[in-house]
Amino acid sequence: MLGTLMMFIVSQKKEEEAKPISCMNKRNTLKEENGRLKIGNYYASDIAKKFGTPLYVLDVEHMENMINAYSHTMKTCYGEGEILYASKALSSKAVYEIVKNQNIGIDVVSGGELFTAKSVDFPMDKVYFHGNNKLIEELEMAVQNNVKMIVCDSFAEMEKIDYIAKKNGIVQKIELRVNPGVEAHTHEHIQTARTDSKFGFGISSGKAMEAVKESLKFENLHLSGIHCHIGSQIFEFESFIITVGKMTDFMKKVKDELDYDFDELNLGGGIGIYYTDEDAKFTLSHYENFLMAVLSEVAKAIEEKGLKKPFVTIEPGRSVVGEAGVTLYTAGNIKDIEGVRKYVAVDGGMFDNPRFALYEAKYEVVNCDKMAETKTEVVTIAGKCCESGDIIAKDVKIPMCQSGDILAVLSTGAYNYSMASNYNRNKIPAMVAVKNDNVGYIVSPQSYEDIARNDKVPDFLKGE
Amino acid sequence: MLGTLMMFIVSQKKEEEAKPISCMNKRNTLKEENGRLKIGNYYASDIAKKFGTPLYVLDVEHMENMINAYSHTMKTCYGEGEILYASKALSSKAVYEIVKNQNIGIDVVSGGELFTAKSVDFPMDKVYFHGNNKLIEELEMAVQNNVKMIVCDSFAEMEKIDYIAKKNGIVQKIELRVNPGVEAHTHEHIQTARTDSKFGFGISSGKAMEAVKESLKFENLHLSGIHCHIGSQIFEFESFIITVGKMTDFMKKVKDELDYDFDELNLGGGIGIYYTDEDAKFTLSHYENFLMAVLSEVAKAIEEKGLKKPFVTIEPGRSVVGEAGVTLYTAGNIKDIEGVRKYVAVDGGMFDNPRFALYEAKYEVVNCDKMAETKTEVVTIAGKCCESGDIIAKDVKIPMCQSGDILAVLSTGAYNYSMASNYNRNKIPAMVAVKNDNVGYIVSPQSYEDIARNDKVPDFLKGE
Repeated sequence: MLGTLMMFIVSQKKEEEAKPISCMNKRNTLKEENGRLKIGNYYASDIAKKFGTPLYVLDVEHMENMINAYSHTMKTCYGEGEILYASKALSSKAVYEIVKNQNIGIDVVSGGELFTAKSVDFPMDKVYFHGNNKLIEELEMAVQNNVKMIVCDSFAEMEKIDYIAKKNGIVQKIELRVNPGVEAHTHEHIQTARTDSKFGFGISSGKAMEAVKESLKFENLHLSGIHCHIGSQIFEFESFIITVGKMTDFMKKVKDELDYDFDELNLGGGIGIYYTDEDAKFTLSHYENFLMAVLSEVAKAIEEKGLKKPFVTIEPGRSVVGEAGVTLYTAGNIKDIEGVRKYVAVDGGMFDNPRFALYEAKYEVVNCDKMAETKTEVVTIAGKCCESGDIIAKDVKIPMCQSGDILAVLSTGAYNYSMASNYNRNKIPAMVAVKNDNVGYIVSPQSYEDIARNDKVPDFLKGE
Repeated sequence: MLGTLMMFIVSQKKEEEAKPISCMNKRNTLKEENGRLKIGNYYASDIAKKFGTPLYVLDVEHMENMINAYSHTMKTCYGEGEILYASKALSSKAVYEIVKNQNIGIDVVSGGELFTAKSVDFPMDKVYFHGNNKLIEELEMAVQNNVKMIVCDSFAEMEKIDYIAKKNGIVQKIELRVNPGVEAHTHEHIQTARTDSKFGFGISSGKAMEAVKESLKFENLHLSGIHCHIGSQIFEFESFIITVGKMTDFMKKVKDELDYDFDELNLGGGIGIYYTDEDAKFTLSHYENFLMAVLSEVAKAIEEKGLKKPFVTIEPGRSVVGEAGVTLYTAGNIKDIEGVRKYVAVDGGMFDNPRFALYEAKYEVVNCDKMAETKTEVVTIAGKCCESGDIIAKDVKIPMCQSGDILAVLSTGAYNYSMASNYNRNKIPAMVAVKNDNVGYIVSPQSYEDIARNDKVPDFLKGE
């Protein structure tokens, strides 16, 4: 198979120097060369020609660069800790394989994610299992597979985990998800640590302390630490610094009241990425500095508060895969409603990227082979679903677009494939990974048979 | 298989009379009996016990009643016409089988829907193919399968259809999707016939007339009619009456200018259903009256305007399946944040019903075995996804709910399964159909293997 893929040789004119493009930075391999978008060693439109569109493309180097930056910072600035890739952002066998080879851990949020990680022999002693309402079958799966940690979200869940651990003859490590009450500045739907949240035990309400006391009573639970997650797409270091203060204050309170030291402190994820020029544009060193600042704050706080140095974990998801992802579409019908709006319809839509429909999310769009041309028109990229809300990007500035052009929507690595559906019975696009001279499917194309695979017609519905 | 299903005998105490419940009407078979929700001849919680939760349940009789009401009204009040079930609302082999046995047509919006319909031998001469950006492969599939009608959405598409029809040696019937500029009162995302829409040729802008003239030039196209779709979840007859006026005005204009009579008039869909007490509660005769009013208006208008009587089609989707569907969940973790909100987490979530996340859609929720109890608390039904926006229904009034209770979310037949995803790698729920004493899978349960079926790990990503 690799042979076939390697045969996919792309013409590489070297006359012009590769240029960085507006949305890009040195974390990923995207660049402009000869007026064309390039990912790894391939022109994007050549990838589209080879694999068809719509197509998700994953830049493996971006993932590796981000993981290494976090990982290196953790080792050099703090020591005992682990980076856990928050795999809900993008989960597939290949993604877990890439993460495994970088020697970091993962957080998973369902039996499905755990199953997928297991299928590439992901080391279970680096797996953290999350969720506000884990099913019994999921908890059993987690315990029986010896995941390192279950992040417990309710009193009822303690009993369930204890019961299952007992049945399996083990003591299960748990963290408690606590709610520090920090409101990060972000879209309402992706704020998570407010007082009004389905997640966690509130610190200010006293529930978190109650949960600590309660969890210590169970014979087959070992309370390892506390976890929080303050939101998503956050750029202010300040939110995280305040969170460290609240979390270590709580650790001190537990130590004072119960003489109990936590082994671990899990600060969750939520750091932002670049979608459009409304977002901060972080370089690799920004992300390193962010983690450095957080870890320094932890070190300072534990010294000031006289706490045992905890094993620190963070859970980046979007920042690891978001800007690693590009979706390639072919422009189809173009509809210019004079004086109103110009629509460019593509061969994908809200079935591969529901984020505009869900959050009015914004994206940067480039015309893959017209990178050097002036952006002369403002268009709305619409999908092919029979729904008016099926928009990919509203009012984006691009060079004159013609039917047949290959468009790239950038920063689609996180929460695109993972949220994809077969809405309108459209096929979920395939995904290819690119690394240097290598390119190949990591999610193969869906067929119509795949979509209808589980459809059944019982006899009682059949006509005469 | 039917044998096994038939063995699933449910205890049926007959002491109490079956009572209609707030959300229900005589169109579906849902009722309250002995304080328990019943669908067909089964208690909902018994269905949940047998098939597990989360589970979509489809009341076949509701579909049949609605189809018959529309169909009968069309025959008796107008004559030449057809009801086309808008299958994007809910598409599966069994659904097409049910529709086929009622002898009506369908509208499909993708190759996937056409494939599914074909797989149960749905008669292709009753299939209308829609879409703002149909792919070449989809147009070829439509032409080669001899669908009755392709609803054309752009000038570029005329050329494509003509080319493909020529290649296949046929003349393809088409309708033009026109935009009458009617704004139905509904959520912004589901308005479709405004001037600013990715769909259709505007009448007022002159594009529609231009499209008529253009389409008449193609040798392998036969222009059969015009189509419009003014929105979704509409209750005002008035919007449809105005639309008939605009559409027939346009037909007259075409007749006057080009001496061309259309064979067909397709008025699309969009009639509303009952979700909560904020919506009108239509009985079967309301729906009949609605169609009767529309058809009378058509008859009146064509007479007044001296037009040839067109074959009329309407495309109900939501009203055929919406209230036929119920989603059953098991209540899991319950989190009462004092003075703020009480969350009841269920074993489903935005992966099986993204409509709250997308549109802040509202639903009625009942506790299946506590139907007779007083609704004493206001709770928010949250899903199990790791996302704060993962809500099914906000602030609904239900009787005291305990972990383990079976909850039914009503009116989930349309745009729930069809929009479902594997977000968080959760399994998409199975669906069962119920009719009298029969109950059986129409979508069988998904496995973790299904979710990861297309995942690949190419050699170049594998570690040493």
